[in-house]
Amino acid sequence: MGGPELERLIDLFAHLPGLGPRSARRIVLRLLRDRETRLLPLAAAIRACADAVRACGICGNLDSCDPCTICANRTREDKICVVETVADLWALERALIYRGTYHVLGGSLSALAGRGPEDLAIASLLARLQTSPPEEVILAMPATVDGAATGHYLTEKIKALGIPVSRLAQGVPMGGALEILDEGTLATALRARRLA
Amino acid sequence: MGGPELERLIDLFAHLPGLGPRSARRIVLRLLRDRETRLLPLAAAIRACADAVRACGICGNLDSCDPCTICANRTREDKICVVETVADLWALERALIYRGTYHVLGGSLSALAGRGPEDLAIASLLARLQTSPPEEVILAMPATVDGAATGHYLTEKIKALGIPVSRLAQGVPMGGALEILDEGTLATALRARRLA
Repeated sequence: MGGPELERLIDLFAHLPGLGPRSARRIVLRLLRDRETRLLPLAAAIRACADAVRACGICGNLDSCDPCTICANRTREDKICVVETVADLWALERALIYRGTYHVLGGSLSALAGRGPEDLAIASLLARLQTSPPEEVILAMPATVDGAATGHYLTEKIKALGIPVSRLAQGVPMGGALEILDEGTLATALRARRLA
Repeated sequence: MGGPELERLIDLFAHLPGLGPRSARRIVLRLLRDRETRLLPLAAAIRACADAVRACGICGNLDSCDPCTICANRTREDKICVVETVADLWALERALIYRGTYHVLGGSLSALAGRGPEDLAIASLLARLQTSPPEEVILAMPATVDGAATGHYLTEKIKALGIPVSRLAQGVPMGGALEILDEGTLATALRARRLA
């Protein structure tokens, strides 16, 4: 349909996360309809990102400056929050609750997927902690088996350096009706109950 | 987050049909992770489409050649199927059931939106029909108020040229359980019942 250029573009869109052939066709038709306001600006924006955006040499965040805006901000607290991905870092920043710095691991330890410590940004984290120990390291791993394994591994390593380590609380999420929560979450929330 | 280039790209993605800020961030992070296999190819593919793809001068289909592959295909039947959008044309082509040519109106008549005949590719359709009258014109309008109005308008105009006009059947869609169908569809299907 519509020649090789069009098919190629639809195919590239269709393989992006959350999209498929149908949504890709819809997007490409909209882009072609709005050539001046969408198609050409999108091409330019992708090119600009490809040229400008790099991983921060300190924390691994994506930014057009290196060190990134967060690492370069001297008013940030002397804490390091360890996350798996840049997406997780962005989610924490959107919550507007944390004012320290970050370290992006690039994934979690996984026996199944064969990912060991050398495949993640763990050596750079430990080097960073040794060079200038922060007040606290906060482990913001996802509440998955791999996330927990990564958290345990890092806790041991960081405690050995004499730096306080904490991890995110687990429990009932905001707005979470008990009847639709899974048993694991309920069990965790009950075990970690606090005096009212 | 991440500098102006990144924000601009996320914003452009977030305004594409079916996407929002969350899916746009996810897509942009994947693009940046797979720089060589996704980010740069996507920029090149958009550029190639912008350069190559044009609306067909005869039918309005999008293609990298003009006349488009369908109009240029001499083995196509001498029928014209009138559709609102290129997306509708593609849907019919995927069904592999129609072997004639098309005419893309670019929308439907709409009193509410203030779209009259002069806003659609109706003059070019009538000129085309007068220059070389096809065996049949098939109106493949959506089953909406505006689609029906457009169909009626075109039926009158095309009948006046002495060319047979038909329109798509309306009724129970494939796989459609009666209990979940709306009353309008059920009424249409009942009225248009056929002897078994």
